This record gives sequence, C-alpha cells and structure tokens, in this order.
Amino acid sequence: MSAMRIAALGGGHGLYATLTAMRYLSPHVTAIVTVADDGGSSGRLRSELGVIPPGDLRMAMAALMCAPAALDGLAGRRDPAADRRHHELWAETLQHRFGGYGALAGHPVGNLLLAGLTEVLGDPVAALDEMMRVFDVDGRVLPMSSVPLEIEADVSGLESDPRISRVIRGQVAVATTPGKVRRVRLLPAEPPVCEPVITAVDEADLVVLGPGSWFSSVIPHVLVPDLLKALQRSTSRKVLIVNLAPEPGETPGFSVERHLHVLHAHADTLTIDHVVVDESSVPAGREREHLERAAGMFGASLEVGDLAVPGRHVHDPAKVAGLIKQLCSRETTR
Amino acid sequence: MSAMRIAALGGGHGLYATLTAMRYLSPHVTAIVTVADDGGSSGRLRSELGVIPPGDLRMAMAALMCAPAALDGLAGRRDPAADRRHHELWAETLQHRFGGYGALAGHPVGNLLLAGLTEVLGDPVAALDEMMRVFDVDGRVLPMSSVPLEIEADVSGLESDPRISRVIRGQVAVATTPGKVRRVRLLPAEPPVCEPVITAVDEADLVVLGPGSWFSSVIPHVLVPDLLKALQRSTSRKVLIVNLAPEPGETPGFSVERHLHVLHAHADTLTIDHVVVDESSVPAGREREHLERAAGMFGASLEVGDLAVPGRHVHDPAKVAGLIKQLCSRETTR
Repeated sequence: MSAMRIAALGGGHGLYATLTAMRYLSPHVTAIVTVADDGGSSGRLRSELGVIPPGDLRMAMAALMCAPAALDGLAGRRDPAADRRHHELWAETLQHRFGGYGALAGHPVGNLLLAGLTEVLGDPVAALDEMMRVFDVDGRVLPMSSVPLEIEADVSGLESDPRISRVIRGQVAVATTPGKVRRVRLLPAEPPVCEPVITAVDEADLVVLGPGSWFSSVIPHVLVPDLLKALQRSTSRKVLIVNLAPEPGETPGFSVERHLHVLHAHADTLTIDHVVVDESSVPAGREREHLERAAGMFGASLEVGDLAVPGRHVHDPAKVAGLIKQLCSRETTR
Repeated sequence: MSAMRIAALGGGHGLYATLTAMRYLSPHVTAIVTVADDGGSSGRLRSELGVIPPGDLRMAMAALMCAPAALDGLAGRRDPAADRRHHELWAETLQHRFGGYGALAGHPVGNLLLAGLTEVLGDPVAALDEMMRVFDVDGRVLPMSSVPLEIEADVSGLESDPRISRVIRGQVAVATTPGKVRRVRLLPAEPPVCEPVITAVDEADLVVLGPGSWFSSVIPHVLVPDLLKALQRSTSRKVLIVNLAPEPGETPGFSVERHLHVLHAHADTLTIDHVVVDESSVPAGREREHLERAAGMFGASLEVGDLAVPGRHVHDPAKVAGLIKQLCSRETTR
C-alpha cells in the first residue's frame, strides 16, 4: 500500500480535499490541475504576465505540504515533527494573501513565487518541480495543459425563451452565470496535454477525479484529448468522487445523477471503476436504482459512504481515504 | 581562517560586493543592512504593507547565496556543484524583477517573498533566518534596525546663498539632490538596533564597513546609537572600505579624504583599524599625507591596493578579499 502511485485530477478546493485524503494513503501523489482560472489573483497574473494561472497549482502544493500524521512514517522522514512545522509554515506562507487595497492586495505569496520562478525557468513544470524540491515535499504538482486555457459554455435560460442558448466565456463568467450551463469547451480547443501528466496517469495505481466545480475543475480534464485517451487506456483503478452538494453558480439544483449525466455527455467513452457518493446525497428506492444505472454508463459501481464533515458540505479527508482504501483492496470489476 | 566570523555593514550594491568578497574568506558572514530605502520596489512595499524595505536585505541574501568557488570546501558541503546550481537559481529568482507595466512591474520576487514571510512570522529577522534556512545558505542577513527608517539631510547649495541649508527627507531625495549633503540624520532619531546585530558585532573577528552610498548606506550604521557603541567597544579587526569613485547625487566630487571627514563628523568616537582605498583614488605626495592623517582620525592605518575591476568603478571581490586576508594576518595596531 505504501508504494501506491496516485494521480488526482481536479482543481480548487475540491482537489485540495482529495489531495489531503490521498496523503493518508501514499506519499506518491501527483496532482493534475486545471489551468483555466481567470478570476482573482490568478486572473490578474495571467493577464499581466501571461503565465499559467498559478492559484490552483499553489493550492495543490499547499495540500501536499500538509501531510497528515499517517504519512510521517511512510515517507521515511528522520524528524517528522520538524518537517511538519517546516511544511505548515511554508504552506501558510504560500497561501498567505497580501491585504489592504494596494497593487498586491489579494495576491497569495505562492502565486507570485510560482509566477516568478516560471519566468526564470521558462517552464511551469520545471518551476513546480523546483518548488517541491526546495520545500522538500513528497509528490508532484502538474498543470493538465502546458498552456493557459479558457472555458466557454453554452448556457440556456438567459433569454425569455428557455430553448435559446448563449455562449459565455471565462471561468468566472461560467461559474456565476444565472443561466443553466449545458456544455463546456476549452479554448484553445483540443489543447496540448502537459506531457508528464500522461506518464503520471499511465504509471498510477489509482486515479481519482473530483470533487470540485463540475464544469470548470472536473469536466475540463476530459476535454484535453490526450488526457482523455490516457484515462481510457489506463488499467489503474479509477474513482470519481461526486460533489456533496450542488454549487449555486455552476450546478444549481443538480442531483448526483445529473452530475454523472453531464460528465458522460462530455466524455461518453470514459470508463470508471467506482463512483463515490456521500450517503446524504443518495435518495432511497427507485431513484437509487437510477443512480446505479447512471454510474453504469461509465461501467462503474456506485459506492455510498459517510464522507462528509458532520453538518458541513465538505468532504472529510480521513473518511474519503478510508473508503478509497477499502475500494483499493477489492478485486477490480474489469 | 576558516572559522573567522565576519560582520559586514552597508547596503545596496556596495554591500553586495563586500559580501561576495567576504565569502572568499569564511562561510560565517553576517550582513548588517540599512533599512532606510524609500525608492523603487522597497519604497512601494513599505508604503503599501508597512514592512521593512526588503530590497537591500534581498540583495545581501543573493550575495551570500552566490558563494565563490573557494568556499565550497570551507562549508563542508557534500555536493558543491549541485549546491552551486541550486544557489545560483534561487539567487537569480530572488533578484528576478517582474517586467511590463502592471501592478507587479519592477518588484523582485525576493522582495515579495520576504515581505510575505515577514507578515506570516510577524518579524523580519525570523523571516530572513527562515529564508536562509530553506535555501540552505551559510551566514546570516540582518536589518540594522528592527523598524523601517527614514533619512533626513541638511543640504546646502539649493538656494542662491550657498550658506543657507535646507532639510531634505527620504533616501531617494537625498541621493538625487543637486545640492551638497552636509549631514544626515535617521528618523526616528536614535532608532532601536536589531538585537542580533549587537551579538554579531560582539562575536565578529572582523568587521567591515562600506563601500556604498556614503550618506544613505554607510553612515546610517553609526547613527544607530547601540550599534555605534558595539562598534566602539569591539575588539575585532575593523576595516573601512572607501568608495572607488564619487557618486553623482550624494558625493559629487568627493575625494577619499572628504569621505573620511564626513564619516568622522557623524561619529567622532568611532575607531577603525584599517582604511582600505583603491590605488587609483590616492593622490601622490602631500595629499597622501593628508589622507593618512584623515585615516588617523579613526586611529586607522591607510591601506592602498589594486582593488578595482580594470576599467570600471567596481570593486573586484577577489582582490578585496586578498587585501583583507593580508590585513587579518597582521598584528592589530591596538
């Protein structure tokens, strides 16, 4: 178990939670991160400097830095307590946002460091690897594509006639549209995958997709053609973790089933082993059968468990790790 | 020789050159840095965030990172070539300035990192120590005072009557005034010394002051009362390195002798062992006697050598190191 190689695909807070969970299982975790953000500090940096939006990459790095206690032994570290303090301090520093109302307000330190190092090295992957090395962090953080991307969506419900669909461009615009997102595309279309991502997926024993903003952090991964191909041919165990609750902007009122249908509509050749769902979001009776059928579109079993922090719409990393560890001990269904 | 502890006082490019020179002599170098800069990135950061101006501190750190070849053995490092690449990359990254015309333009990455880490740790010394630790650099970088300072100068020659003196405030204003700087003061007056600076001076075998912008990087050190006291009581070898050439703004037309008189006018109790001067700036005959007498105000010997990069007004670190090593092998004059 300690040698298990894990690839976790997503973005933002959803990926942060998954990475924290995966660190209970192995130090060999590769985060594969969406790079279509155009809001906040990331949006300002990509428009000012032309770099890949660093925010989700920085957040993934911070997640890998804050390894849970269970890992201290696995990674074979000599002084776990000192390493813990070191990693917590630097995770806090990378995440620290400048305050006030000046030119720097809202920029996390880690975004600026990653942007600067990327300019020096000329390559975001080299910069990410170097930061992981200098801060002595296990695992790897990779952008899903080697170029900054944009998201474009077909959105209905913005006109008086609900059948009329309009095109909305930009991650922030898509995430906050009052309309219904029907379909998303990446710009440039068919973007180049970041090559080490393919290796990470090919070599993984376990691939985890989600949770996260469904249209802007989860679905984009299957819109990178070479990444989708790698996921299709992968013989690793593939797990999809569905969101605990609908998000007001992107997925208002979405059931779990709807999440699955939307993903399938964007990648109908994708196969998955297990669809992981929190028990609170699974209906009883006939509807549960529908949900099992929806998981079946991917060839996946439906796995229901207690995954949430009590009283909050947030995954508990230890619970997620527990369920996934259990799934990994099963024979694969394929 | 390898265990010699060195304290180098100054700021800006002059201190950078001295630190590079000192790294030929020992890994145990403490940089003690002026914190009165109000221009460029440092000025923007101190006014936006209220932090100590980080620019000269960052530059000192970069100097200590780029240790000369002579040091590789001294520091007892296992893989000097890998360490060299690591330090060169991070020195370059800390010094790297964002380009363009946006909010970040002109900010070096290291200034932003130091400012952010100072906010997280609540203390610039803790932040500097942590950066030296994480980048695995020998030595230490300290601000001379624990609070940001301002420089104020009495300047003559700004009115038609040359006897009239006006007060000019701010390092940039002082450095660029068309008038003659007569005297500088720090604001707040009698600022608190950064405590570890006292320890560094007390424990040093060698203390080096200068070269650098005379009024804004060199003289400020003797205007911090507790630092001046530490210099006065120190039994270490004390060396003053005089600038190779006058600076247009601060010291236009200044002779070496004038540099010494101006320093003495600000700290008439300061004693020094050796005043180090490049041979190109020492006149022959009677004037040389005047210069020896000026050095004598500090109780110092006049030491003349070939110290410059040929054809440029820049100290050659290897030559400076050579002369100072030679001075250190002499019996002290006191």
